[in-house]
Amino acid sequence: MADSMPGPDATLASEPGLEHPYYPLNVQIPGYAPNETSVIQLLPVFGGIIAAVVGSVLLQAAKSRSPLRPIDHFAAAWFAMCGFLHIAFEGYYLYYRNQLPGMSTTFAQLWKEYALSDSRYLTNDVFTISVETITAIAWGPLSWLTVRGILANSPSRHVTQLIVCVAHLYGVALYYLTNWMEGQMYGVAYSRPEFLYYWVYYIGFNMPWAIVPVVLLWDSWQQIMRAFSALEEKEARAKKE
Amino acid sequence: MADSMPGPDATLASEPGLEHPYYPLNVQIPGYAPNETSVIQLLPVFGGIIAAVVGSVLLQAAKSRSPLRPIDHFAAAWFAMCGFLHIAFEGYYLYYRNQLPGMSTTFAQLWKEYALSDSRYLTNDVFTISVETITAIAWGPLSWLTVRGILANSPSRHVTQLIVCVAHLYGVALYYLTNWMEGQMYGVAYSRPEFLYYWVYYIGFNMPWAIVPVVLLWDSWQQIMRAFSALEEKEARAKKE
Repeated sequence: MADSMPGPDATLASEPGLEHPYYPLNVQIPGYAPNETSVIQLLPVFGGIIAAVVGSVLLQAAKSRSPLRPIDHFAAAWFAMCGFLHIAFEGYYLYYRNQLPGMSTTFAQLWKEYALSDSRYLTNDVFTISVETITAIAWGPLSWLTVRGILANSPSRHVTQLIVCVAHLYGVALYYLTNWMEGQMYGVAYSRPEFLYYWVYYIGFNMPWAIVPVVLLWDSWQQIMRAFSALEEKEARAKKE
Repeated sequence: MADSMPGPDATLASEPGLEHPYYPLNVQIPGYAPNETSVIQLLPVFGGIIAAVVGSVLLQAAKSRSPLRPIDHFAAAWFAMCGFLHIAFEGYYLYYRNQLPGMSTTFAQLWKEYALSDSRYLTNDVFTISVETITAIAWGPLSWLTVRGILANSPSRHVTQLIVCVAHLYGVALYYLTNWMEGQMYGVAYSRPEFLYYWVYYIGFNMPWAIVPVVLLWDSWQQIMRAFSALEEKEARAKKE
């Protein structure tokens, strides 16, 4: 029995498939094996990979001969991170989702840690798999296309940026809303209630996708409007001549 | 007993909450009352309302002094229809979703007829309610903003058009995918299997939102690129002077 253990493990049950720390506590997670590595050790590895990806893009941006604004450097870093997460990290979840609860690779352990804030990642939840499939297939590659567009100073980057920003906003809105409604309507909580899991992991880690896209969408809107006013000037001049 | 009746009603069960023609047949739909009006009578009313909405927008487009292209007229009609459906029809569903199974207004009977192809609309399905909430609140008003932008020949219409097109594509992809995965993974079918319900209502009625947005997204992309090349010309000229 786990009664004497502190933290999440304190809620472990003894029936098969229910011996796990995830919410709701009665959800079946067959084959679950506890993480072997602590968060303190997992996070630096994950942070290191992301830093390497983002850093190499920022380096290319710094060397670019295009006149990049500060917000362009930020956008390049942002979409590089999104492209990495969508394809590598979320793609990993999609590929291994059936074995994930019993796996102990770095990525699997990171997913099992995150799932403390949303067990849908370990239960073959239809909505989660659907969103992640579209994210990995569509928004991942489009994020990288936006990075390439920014580095090449191509105006098409504002179109792909708009597309990915709308997708992120819609995705995160649905992500929060489905979870919240499940609680409101059926009293089901997918997140453990502790501050770390609910507020830091679930609300906090997803919040950037509700904020950054608004900023970048606004920037693309401004740039597109500036382009159209140049087009209007050109057409007005052509009419006069 | 309904055993002697033809069509969908043939599958009615006799337990309370299960006396309905919806799939899966074991889903609970408390308070269900069969439609009083036939589809042949419901559809012309619905078609008439949509025709009135779309017609009045097309009339304004025809009177507009802006140089509208044929695709702009089409886009104005399309987004007027979307705006009406999202706010009035889908908003109606959201507002009355708890009483809907027992209601007999025209809109309620239309929803009950459509739900033969997707029972999630009568079962307080969390994904359906979440998507429809965002659709009614965000994509409905943005559809009308796009109509206004087209009629006023405002370039911002290409930004709102892009936003709504991405939202429609993401929405319809999730709509099809969640439903399909539920079948693949858990063997649950939300649609009756008959050709009319599965292919005409479920696949057919939603298909425009998978096709039209691609066309309009492509058009906005082209127009935005044209605007940016005018901006580049302008900036090149400014450099020379």
